Amino acid sequence: MEKARHAGTFSSFELTCFIYGGESVVIERRAALGRIENLLGAHDTSKLPHPYGNTNREEAFLEGLRWGKAAFEDGMKHNHDFFDFLTPRYTLSNASPFGMTKAMFEPTLRFCASAEQQSRWLPLSSSGKIIGAYAQTELGHGSFVRGIETTATYDRETDEFVINSATLTSIKFWPGALGFSCTHAIVVARLITNSQDHGPHHFMVQLRSLEDGTPLPGISLGDVGLKLSYNETCNGFASFDHVRIPRTEMLMGYAKVARNGSYERRGHPQLLYSTMLMARGAITKVATFQLAQAVTIATRYSVVREQGPGPDTLSSFETSVMWYKSQHFRIFTLIAKSYAMLFASRTCDTQYEKLREQQDKGNDMFLPYTHSLTAGLKAWSTQIASDGAEDARKCCGGHGYLMIAGLGEIVATVTVLATLEGENYVMWQQVSRYLFKCLDYLAQGKSIDPQMAYLRDGNQQFSSSGRPLSRMSSITLGATSEADFADSNIQLAIYRHRAVRLALAAYTAVKSSKESPANVWNENMMSIIDAARAHIEYIVLRSFIDQIHNLPPSISPPVKLVLTRLCSLFALSNIINPGTIGAISFVEDGYLSSDQLQTIRSLVNDLLKQLIPDAIALTDAWDFTDASLCSALGMKDGNVYENIMNWVNQLPINVRARAENKGVFQPGWRDWIDPFLKARL
Amino acid sequence: MEKARHAGTFSSFELTCFIYGGESVVIERRAALGRIENLLGAHDTSKLPHPYGNTNREEAFLEGLRWGKAAFEDGMKHNHDFFDFLTPRYTLSNASPFGMTKAMFEPTLRFCASAEQQSRWLPLSSSGKIIGAYAQTELGHGSFVRGIETTATYDRETDEFVINSATLTSIKFWPGALGFSCTHAIVVARLITNSQDHGPHHFMVQLRSLEDGTPLPGISLGDVGLKLSYNETCNGFASFDHVRIPRTEMLMGYAKVARNGSYERRGHPQLLYSTMLMARGAITKVATFQLAQAVTIATRYSVVREQGPGPDTLSSFETSVMWYKSQHFRIFTLIAKSYAMLFASRTCDTQYEKLREQQDKGNDMFLPYTHSLTAGLKAWSTQIASDGAEDARKCCGGHGYLMIAGLGEIVATVTVLATLEGENYVMWQQVSRYLFKCLDYLAQGKSIDPQMAYLRDGNQQFSSSGRPLSRMSSITLGATSEADFADSNIQLAIYRHRAVRLALAAYTAVKSSKESPANVWNENMMSIIDAARAHIEYIVLRSFIDQIHNLPPSISPPVKLVLTRLCSLFALSNIINPGTIGAISFVEDGYLSSDQLQTIRSLVNDLLKQLIPDAIALTDAWDFTDASLCSALGMKDGNVYENIMNWVNQLPINVRARAENKGVFQPGWRDWIDPFLKARL
Repeated sequence: MEKARHAGTFSSFELTCFIYGGESVVIERRAALGRIENLLGAHDTSKLPHPYGNTNREEAFLEGLRWGKAAFEDGMKHNHDFFDFLTPRYTLSNASPFGMTKAMFEPTLRFCASAEQQSRWLPLSSSGKIIGAYAQTELGHGSFVRGIETTATYDRETDEFVINSATLTSIKFWPGALGFSCTHAIVVARLITNSQDHGPHHFMVQLRSLEDGTPLPGISLGDVGLKLSYNETCNGFASFDHVRIPRTEMLMGYAKVARNGSYERRGHPQLLYSTMLMARGAITKVATFQLAQAVTIATRYSVVREQGPGPDTLSSFETSVMWYKSQHFRIFTLIAKSYAMLFASRTCDTQYEKLREQQDKGNDMFLPYTHSLTAGLKAWSTQIASDGAEDARKCCGGHGYLMIAGLGEIVATVTVLATLEGENYVMWQQVSRYLFKCLDYLAQGKSIDPQMAYLRDGNQQFSSSGRPLSRMSSITLGATSEADFADSNIQLAIYRHRAVRLALAAYTAVKSSKESPANVWNENMMSIIDAARAHIEYIVLRSFIDQIHNLPPSISPPVKLVLTRLCSLFALSNIINPGTIGAISFVEDGYLSSDQLQTIRSLVNDLLKQLIPDAIALTDAWDFTDASLCSALGMKDGNVYENIMNWVNQLPINVRARAENKGVFQPGWRDWIDPFLKARL
Repeated sequence: MEKARHAGTFSSFELTCFIYGGESVVIERRAALGRIENLLGAHDTSKLPHPYGNTNREEAFLEGLRWGKAAFEDGMKHNHDFFDFLTPRYTLSNASPFGMTKAMFEPTLRFCASAEQQSRWLPLSSSGKIIGAYAQTELGHGSFVRGIETTATYDRETDEFVINSATLTSIKFWPGALGFSCTHAIVVARLITNSQDHGPHHFMVQLRSLEDGTPLPGISLGDVGLKLSYNETCNGFASFDHVRIPRTEMLMGYAKVARNGSYERRGHPQLLYSTMLMARGAITKVATFQLAQAVTIATRYSVVREQGPGPDTLSSFETSVMWYKSQHFRIFTLIAKSYAMLFASRTCDTQYEKLREQQDKGNDMFLPYTHSLTAGLKAWSTQIASDGAEDARKCCGGHGYLMIAGLGEIVATVTVLATLEGENYVMWQQVSRYLFKCLDYLAQGKSIDPQMAYLRDGNQQFSSSGRPLSRMSSITLGATSEADFADSNIQLAIYRHRAVRLALAAYTAVKSSKESPANVWNENMMSIIDAARAHIEYIVLRSFIDQIHNLPPSISPPVKLVLTRLCSLFALSNIINPGTIGAISFVEDGYLSSDQLQTIRSLVNDLLKQLIPDAIALTDAWDFTDASLCSALGMKDGNVYENIMNWVNQLPINVRARAENKGVFQPGWRDWIDPFLKARL
């Protein structure tokens, strides 16, 4: 491991500083993690980590309370926001029973409450005097927010809203922290005033007594039980039986109900989207770090694990599994993806900041592009991370299946991101709706967002009349040599051609049909999704390349070189990787020939060889502590087998069997095995 | 749900009988499942299933003992083998702490022990007087069996073997039932006699006292802890400190050590492979049923779950998510895969029986093909099932993430099949080694297994000299209409062309290199694996088509029709499905044009429409009991929301909070939340 660590061609600390935004941030983050891990005893990784020894539902939740409280209080005390969206273990802060306060509750207040309401509630929340949840999803309603059934009916006589769950499917179900930890929730319910239904609005509802935690009258609360992961928190359910709240508890930043029940919409209704866009941006970032975690573990394990004779079939030594090309290919393409995601999430942040800046000036012009970008990157990054983390786990063979490997938990944690906060298949369709709108505008000769100009520029098929033609036929790529394909302009041309072609094909199919819009959309959905994915992959590659070209001057040449190689590997391996989703569309129109693909394959092999010395440096750069990885396979020291046996020997089932019963698990032997053996004597 | 159930075009019971091999088998299986589920109280699915309420490591193991004992004893009492490889919940019987006895222990005895040894041990094992494990894998050694480090050194003075684990990495690690339930194990250790190392051999070792379960002197045993799944059993570790066993405890069916320590190999050493081949065949079958389970749940949920307005955007009713084409496509291509896997596993069974029949006559001629077939189908089916079950889970959106959905457990259970009993990337290479051997033979003008004749027949590039040429260029497919592509001969031609092309390309690349064999193999590994996968996909399609053409006359036309449609859907959707691994190789040489792909896409859409009435009938046909699915989302009645809330309300954390503390989870409130809220007052 030390040998592999020293083989790196660049300073991994320099890259760490680049990843986290500067040396001072890295140092402050390390200090914060150090304080929390010390406080909780997690820093001593020779001890079996708490979750592996305490495995039932209640214990998992208590562990979440322990970590969540420590992280929240550290942020308050030391005035940082490191763990507002990302827990100290690099999961979405939804995993903390205190985490929704920062992740959804406060942002929603900022965007949707009136100034007076904000000044009333935000200080309580940010000082930890209340714990907030965000209750939108219902048992029967997720993606389709308009379908939400919980009602908030205005009672003019008492100047109150009556919150009610009339049906089984209207029970609030899933919100983080709702089960047993939050005291308040922003509840999304249909606003009804003077018998008129105004659709979903936000209401502040106190759920529990601050004194003893009991649910307030008319409110039933509970836990949804174990999930595949996120069991440190209590995703919960809530039903409301005619619960009354004052009129002033409706969030009135964008709409208002007057004393007489009259309803008025005001402000920028688009701001409603802001929490959602921010959450999706955060998800892309979390997916990045989680994939990086999984790959860090798999890389360290692959360097240490030996199996088979490798290059020298006569040797009595076995070889590191990293030597095997399939492992080498899988690990490094995953590393490249994790960095591509990092750059993509930065693009997302920058775009979101631009949007918010303009929105503060009352200008929503960036909203459509930002909306489609965050939706698309969310879908793309979570799918890549979910599939990638699972492949990283499989790269660790049998041992990757142990819970103490840490990978199962990472995979389970990251995979929900594909479904949560906008299901990915819904997200792709939102991207395409925006794509099609741009194509409509182009066809009408109108201007489109400059970031989308490639649809025109990359498209030689827009005739002089400005209307898109139906297909891009018989275009082929001129590149032949490895040097050609190493050129980022060529790489980008491949992705651009595919994106434009698929967008036009889907658009033309939809526009030329005579069926109803809903049916024609549905009939063409597979091509519509392909088009969205190709667009986002083009945007991802473009932003990766742009950011490498514009690295700050402080970045040293070795770091720039390794990032350039990763970018090329990302672009090219994605075309020829058998696991790439939708790779067929790179070649099905004949744009790339079989010979060109062989050249790409050969160049990918070269890049893999150039990158192999940097395996450990590239993963060390993420700066994960051993405690945050919580993995017997992935510790910095590479002492895989010692760490496995050390933790396994500390498992309570083994400790008890040894200490109390000379190596027998007594409840099992006494009640089941012994009777079984003796039954037939 | 009832409406969807009655929409079927065929009798699902007829298909059930076909799946399980006849009506009497179905009836006997149902009776056996009924007895066990009744005995354990699992039949009443209005009660929260035991594993969802008892969630720690110890409780999971006790649950496994309960089920394992019931299944084993039912088989003994009623003289059936239904649960020898497949538990009553349709997982590999490794999941039972008693299961390795039937799955590995007894088969190994049959293949590797002498007749005398068999008559000594098999009666003990089959009557449940001992419980067996199979201990091969070590902490440091999995795929590479030759690397195993545990030693069995013959001590001539005492006529004993000394079993020893000299190193950390030699500790036996992973074997099912080793931790706390087995009494005996067949231990694989390097045989050393007269200072000579004869490599890995099998030894019978008693591990625990039959009286009180304590480990015998010199033996340390324990549990490896929680895994992603299979927590009903105690996968364990074992280390041996100079443990002595009589010489007669070496399995002497294929090799013998005499009193003086002299070593003699005898019998058919190839029989050594038999347990492995049988296990791989069983894995393909288990993967089939597990994918079918996941798809059954996802199909039922998709029929019931409504979201969004669907085709009529103005309607106030929401539409079943099955209506959405992406869902429709995903669900039905998964159904088609589950049936393709069923037929593939039958091919595997038939081939294995042929092999065993010939081996009993001393003839090993079928071994190479059978070996490559079981390896390839194992890798193919477990990857399809692992990815497919996860996609089925994602098809259930957020609710699929609940443990009570049952899908998380299925995904975790099936995913290990990709790693266990031959890691898939190792399996693919074994397939290619056989492929290349066939191409060698063809080049030398020798005959090859008739099942591989397609390499010659499908390959117009074998010149008159009989030597394969380097590539198949400029061949294109003549088919144009949907009717053409609906023809199974055309479908097969597409898969055959691809398989031959990739095999020749990889073979030629390997043969034309001047590097060392290990290096040239490694350099070309990605194409070698592509070739293996394409070969197996061709074999799978061929066997699916063949078996449909040769259905027994008793099969009714509607069943034949629906299977034919599924087969076409399987063949064609695999080409254009964005998620298909390696789909690019169908088109990269220009064999299929863009227009042809559009025709295929259109035909796939037609097939999806024809199949939609059969969604429920096709999944009901697997005949899964509600108890075996253990899913609140996937019960036969389709009452998803009622079942979710019913189980959630019975979760111990909710029951206790309600009963004892007016809705408060007291340990959490008292120790963490209350102090948090009050800290800053």
